[in-house]
Amino acid sequence: MPTIYGLRASGNCYKLQHLLDALGRPYRWIETDSTAGATRTQEFLALNPNGKVPLLVLEDGRRLAESNAILCYLAEGTPWLPSDPWERARTLQWMFFEQYSHEPYVAVARFVCKWLPEDHPRRAELPQLLERGARAFDVMEDHLSGESFFSGGVFGVADIALFAYTHCAADGGFDLSRWPNVTDWLARVRAQPGFSPMHA
Amino acid sequence: MPTIYGLRASGNCYKLQHLLDALGRPYRWIETDSTAGATRTQEFLALNPNGKVPLLVLEDGRRLAESNAILCYLAEGTPWLPSDPWERARTLQWMFFEQYSHEPYVAVARFVCKWLPEDHPRRAELPQLLERGARAFDVMEDHLSGESFFSGGVFGVADIALFAYTHCAADGGFDLSRWPNVTDWLARVRAQPGFSPMHA
Repeated sequence: MPTIYGLRASGNCYKLQHLLDALGRPYRWIETDSTAGATRTQEFLALNPNGKVPLLVLEDGRRLAESNAILCYLAEGTPWLPSDPWERARTLQWMFFEQYSHEPYVAVARFVCKWLPEDHPRRAELPQLLERGARAFDVMEDHLSGESFFSGGVFGVADIALFAYTHCAADGGFDLSRWPNVTDWLARVRAQPGFSPMHA
Repeated sequence: MPTIYGLRASGNCYKLQHLLDALGRPYRWIETDSTAGATRTQEFLALNPNGKVPLLVLEDGRRLAESNAILCYLAEGTPWLPSDPWERARTLQWMFFEQYSHEPYVAVARFVCKWLPEDHPRRAELPQLLERGARAFDVMEDHLSGESFFSGGVFGVADIALFAYTHCAADGGFDLSRWPNVTDWLARVRAQPGFSPMHA
């Protein structure tokens, strides 16, 4: 049984819970509070020198970091990761989009609003985070005007990756009613068989 | 023959030149100056709603964005992308690391130093960019103490992705002599058959 080191409240970590629960695969979860320094200990850095969760550890001790790389590994051979090279490439496109153009704004706005005190200087970043996050939702809205999902036309790992922080974007101050296609897509993801909600 | 919309001076675009030249595959390059607004025109946004280069356009008109997704697509079936699921996952891990923990600091420091005027307010970001970029090099240095490359033990797409902005990190003020394993790895990449240097 694989082990996940993760923080339940983290969207990046939730991605793995979401996929593994949907696949019905058992796993061990070791709660690792990165907001309290648990990823900067000597013990954890020996497992992942980049000091981040989630981290996958296989029974034989092999380790894999980066939420979206872990999603691809766990979904290999399932309908959640297309086998067709072009559809697989489109799926990866959206997963890289998520980590570069979406998460650094949508997830960080949530972090600033939910974890930092009201008078924290990083609250000054919020207007820019909201503007850049809105751009990411515009790009998703455009895609969803012609397709139902992000993983090569069907539900899969790119949807799980994008769902993670989109579904809780209101925590960071986003009003998702501005993006009706995105709102409909969130409902389609929640209606998937075996859908696993975030525990946080 | 595929078409690449790209900016020669961009590391993200250089990745595709590097791979396609190494594979000996012909391609058409359309120079697209994102620093002069060429990715924000109506025409370009119709091709890539995220308004970024590089962009791959196939002969039949299909389009793919995100440099690392394009690398994976073009390298499918070649030794540059491992077919073994675990080695492929490790390769993807480093490509997501590059886009999340490396490029936003190493590439942005280069952009600030080379493209912005001496008195630009964004120069205030440099100390933090250099600190975070140094952390990324520390993680690479650690990996290279036990392995020669980043793409499942052999040279491949994750090396091409990480080489893009590491080899020109001095442009952003990094002194790579602090990381001797990284320096040696850069030399190994340059010694690969068909190595294609950045034109910028």
